Amino acid sequence: MAGHIENRRVAILATHGVEQVELDEPRRALEEAGATVALVAPEGGAIQAFNHLDRGDERPVDLTLDEGKAEDFDALVLPGGVANPDFLRTDERATRFVRDFFALEKPVGVICHGPWTLIEAGVVRGRTLTSWPSLRTDLENAGANWVDEEVVVDAGLVSSRKPDDLPAFCAKIVEEFAEGRHSRQAA
Amino acid sequence: MAGHIENRRVAILATHGVEQVELDEPRRALEEAGATVALVAPEGGAIQAFNHLDRGDERPVDLTLDEGKAEDFDALVLPGGVANPDFLRTDERATRFVRDFFALEKPVGVICHGPWTLIEAGVVRGRTLTSWPSLRTDLENAGANWVDEEVVVDAGLVSSRKPDDLPAFCAKIVEEFAEGRHSRQAA
Repeated sequence: MAGHIENRRVAILATHGVEQVELDEPRRALEEAGATVALVAPEGGAIQAFNHLDRGDERPVDLTLDEGKAEDFDALVLPGGVANPDFLRTDERATRFVRDFFALEKPVGVICHGPWTLIEAGVVRGRTLTSWPSLRTDLENAGANWVDEEVVVDAGLVSSRKPDDLPAFCAKIVEEFAEGRHSRQAA
Repeated sequence: MAGHIENRRVAILATHGVEQVELDEPRRALEEAGATVALVAPEGGAIQAFNHLDRGDERPVDLTLDEGKAEDFDALVLPGGVANPDFLRTDERATRFVRDFFALEKPVGVICHGPWTLIEAGVVRGRTLTSWPSLRTDLENAGANWVDEEVVVDAGLVSSRKPDDLPAFCAKIVEEFAEGRHSRQAA
């Protein structure tokens, strides 16, 4: 059983350069399961999604990082796209937002280049996860245990490598987010 | 005095996603000073340069990583562009090529996101350098001493942060590459 996700509030944290399919597919899966999803970004308006190296569509921002608080959500998703976490990790509001989900023991899903923001938030030491392969060394140097699997679950932290992993990633975040808090998630 | 750069052979290692100005400006400065410059890339043909998030021009590849050897060059330049080192660091030929310049005590210039490839080559431990600020934590976790300066020189390793630093970066690589080998450069 997938537990109760109907009343869950999920934040997707992303900015310009986000891989469009890694933003849209988790949102669709979570909303189809009944969750309420908000796109949180550094600034209001819209963010520019990308299809690999090319501009895709814009996506409207629901809440800025000045408005959104981890306390107001039950779970977090961090999509990839190489430029997206590269922007986010230099914004202290973004790293604090991410760190708060871990401190509050709330489940987090992260895919592709998304874990760079986890490194900056200081929450990967001792955790087992996967990512786009270019991040392996950065994650290991930050103290993580990196594995090469379609989807990895470590006590509330769900991770995948790339867009091809999205079906497995989306199914697993719906399942984990329904379970709710994980006491081993705290940083 | 700038020493003798007229007969120096310089490799610029880059691939798709390279920041165009960080490829073109160092090449121009080195060629104007009399050096011979070759663009080395994973595959032949041309690479797609970028102006931040948008496609710029293509640049013809002079040598592939199957053809180019560090032994054949006197110095190396690693431009940035967020996607460029993200591609290069997953190519073992690229990390070996970079590592060989350090093992051979040859000077290296690196700017912006370029140092990710240095992390993967395992050559930053104990070195002092700068980069685009998003790489600071990855470089420190890899054992580097990260500083926030326009241009940094550490025994043959020249580094800068961003396109605005290019005038200082280009002047310094011409100076350092003219000096030749640095015995403290070896990994």
